[in-house]
Amino acid sequence: MSVRITGVDVHDVRFPTAAAGDGSDAINRGDYSATYVELRTDGGPTGAGFTFTNGRGNEITCAAVRALAHHVRGRTVAEIEADPVVFWRSLVADVQLRWLGPEKGVIHMATGALVNAVWDLRAKLAGKPMWRYLAELPTDELVANVDFHHITDALTPDEAAAILDKGRDGLADRLAELERDGLPSYTTSVGWLGYPDDKVRALTREAYAQGWRAMKMKVGGPPEDDLRRARIIRAEIGPDALLMMDANQVWDVDEAITNMTALAEVDPYWIEEPTHADDVLGHARIARAVTELTGGRCRVATGEVAANRVIFKQLLQAEAIGVMQVDACRVGGINEVLAELLMAAKFGVPVCPHAGGVGLCEYVQHLTAFDFLRVGTSLQGRMVEYVDHLHEHFVDPVRTHGGRYVLPTAPGYSTSMKPESIAEFRFPDGPAWR
Amino acid sequence: MSVRITGVDVHDVRFPTAAAGDGSDAINRGDYSATYVELRTDGGPTGAGFTFTNGRGNEITCAAVRALAHHVRGRTVAEIEADPVVFWRSLVADVQLRWLGPEKGVIHMATGALVNAVWDLRAKLAGKPMWRYLAELPTDELVANVDFHHITDALTPDEAAAILDKGRDGLADRLAELERDGLPSYTTSVGWLGYPDDKVRALTREAYAQGWRAMKMKVGGPPEDDLRRARIIRAEIGPDALLMMDANQVWDVDEAITNMTALAEVDPYWIEEPTHADDVLGHARIARAVTELTGGRCRVATGEVAANRVIFKQLLQAEAIGVMQVDACRVGGINEVLAELLMAAKFGVPVCPHAGGVGLCEYVQHLTAFDFLRVGTSLQGRMVEYVDHLHEHFVDPVRTHGGRYVLPTAPGYSTSMKPESIAEFRFPDGPAWR
Repeated sequence: MSVRITGVDVHDVRFPTAAAGDGSDAINRGDYSATYVELRTDGGPTGAGFTFTNGRGNEITCAAVRALAHHVRGRTVAEIEADPVVFWRSLVADVQLRWLGPEKGVIHMATGALVNAVWDLRAKLAGKPMWRYLAELPTDELVANVDFHHITDALTPDEAAAILDKGRDGLADRLAELERDGLPSYTTSVGWLGYPDDKVRALTREAYAQGWRAMKMKVGGPPEDDLRRARIIRAEIGPDALLMMDANQVWDVDEAITNMTALAEVDPYWIEEPTHADDVLGHARIARAVTELTGGRCRVATGEVAANRVIFKQLLQAEAIGVMQVDACRVGGINEVLAELLMAAKFGVPVCPHAGGVGLCEYVQHLTAFDFLRVGTSLQGRMVEYVDHLHEHFVDPVRTHGGRYVLPTAPGYSTSMKPESIAEFRFPDGPAWR
Repeated sequence: MSVRITGVDVHDVRFPTAAAGDGSDAINRGDYSATYVELRTDGGPTGAGFTFTNGRGNEITCAAVRALAHHVRGRTVAEIEADPVVFWRSLVADVQLRWLGPEKGVIHMATGALVNAVWDLRAKLAGKPMWRYLAELPTDELVANVDFHHITDALTPDEAAAILDKGRDGLADRLAELERDGLPSYTTSVGWLGYPDDKVRALTREAYAQGWRAMKMKVGGPPEDDLRRARIIRAEIGPDALLMMDANQVWDVDEAITNMTALAEVDPYWIEEPTHADDVLGHARIARAVTELTGGRCRVATGEVAANRVIFKQLLQAEAIGVMQVDACRVGGINEVLAELLMAAKFGVPVCPHAGGVGLCEYVQHLTAFDFLRVGTSLQGRMVEYVDHLHEHFVDPVRTHGGRYVLPTAPGYSTSMKPESIAEFRFPDGPAWR
């Protein structure tokens, strides 16, 4: 464990996805890209992490990684593991860089890329896939990796330890279940706003035939278009499969309530990002309205752009969400995700992580597996998002079977990209961009 | 008005302030710096704007300005004024760059620098200082500059128009008052955490002699040190002058309540940033506790790192603040500040803008003058923060007299830096940094 991080390499990797309409929603339309970080070590494996971005601007998160890299370069893994919150805060509470967030946006996403690369290195050194590495850590070590600053009014270290200790009960049974069945999942590949009706119908039919029983569509276009597309999908999947909707923040609070009144016809399972991501009180109002409107059959989901644990804390305290959608690399990496999983467990809200983009599926399968094994301890209402994009660029890509994720087995966080993909898609000098 | 913006120049300007302990608080300790933007035009004046940063990382906001600049370059001022929200959203809702915020942190600060530079240009073309330019705009033009997206549950365009129309009543009297007396102000120069007790005492005595009757100290160190320093200041200024406290987010929610229980002894006028800036619900709890603790004599203030109008909306809706501290250039420039001033007026909360750093005093004097003339229409509880740092680098620096700001008269937003200061302090190649 005396491995030392000797260098931090940053790559601006972008995939030209915008032209195909993949990933188009009410707000975003971009070239999926990643600020990809490699930690070189003196004789150990290479740690890989990244934050997902949306094309233009990836050079900004790359600049932020460079600005933070001196907190990582030269450290040994042993030092970091001995006092992980001191390490985490060296990035998050940097006395000059904190002003640029604080703990949000570009600077926090860059922190997430670096912190996750360190965790990838830790798991590789332990020779375990991340989900197993986390699930097998002693309770006190897990708790020592959480920064409780600003969340003690929702979760104390003792409460976190109690959740993690309880998570040892039945762990072997849950592990056997996961290894046999994989992780429940849903697909977002059927209903992007950029797709015509025929394509939506054909993709829905295909996904259903492949075994998917939960599908998410984008809403937030003209309300009559949203309803027409929703009816197409519901007609294809029948009354029992789950239909989720994602408005990508485009609605105002009252508009969200009005539009969900109409869309309730197709029995949505959740409405995701019904309004601005920062609007905790707005989400709470929408949640109360949607619950009343559907007798509790529909819930509010959000989190893919929730900036940090303080926003998630409030979403839980205000009863604003029925599903928490953490993102693996918008927040400050696994240290902060741990805080969020633990708060969700305390408040009894299931976590269905945000995925898609590039590499997010690779990341979050580990989080959901760990959550089931040690924190939330249930698969009830838990699903990992799945989008069939860009997995071919990863050394250890996700695998699905019959609408479920197959547990990864290679050591690390599944974050390593193929060198040839980095070379091909590096911006602006890779062959794909020249 | 057919002036066209032909070029966008960005300068990374940093002042070596960290060594002196100026600006040190519970969280930040940096070299005050600015991402400084100049808009070149075809024959018109140069528009100047900036966002304030804290030293390292200023290159990141500069990169963000470059990523957004194509939305500004090539536009005419007439086009922008004809449909200002379309222009504003071209930056804020860029389909690829929005992911990096959304509307927060680096990308939003860069937006603020660019948007303010456009406003500086508009006011210069009109030949008026910004406060007068804004105060004399017709109500419908002011309303047309506000993006109501995501705030209609707190403020509608009709409500905004009614506030601004009412703001015409008595405007001439208020203008005469401002021109005679200037703007009420308070000083933050007395109590930085980096200063020893003797320096705090001497600076407080000096400020009092200069006419200041409201002073702000930093808290968030060891509680006994905070109380000792507070007693020194209170002893110097007597029972009638106002003593404000600023914790710069260092406390957890319950910790803030505990510490204010002790600090109530010195009769603080407000506690600023008592906890994490994103914690609307936490601020609301602290506000209830502090109100009860002091019989309403002390209130909660926050805003200098509040990301956007959606956070301010919630702080008002939750009754979490008794003072709103907008920042001129962390949010998306004047368009967003207008929304915030109007919401504050509707909710009856006074606005005391954040200043200090570099150039923030130059900015916010215009906002408070406009707020008094046309929006809030009262000086009750309104004060502009004043810090005696770095004004010498501006073409039209703030002037104070007897603890009040003297109204600026030069056309524009007082944002233009001296060319020789830019040359001297440009990072990393200016003589000050070589």
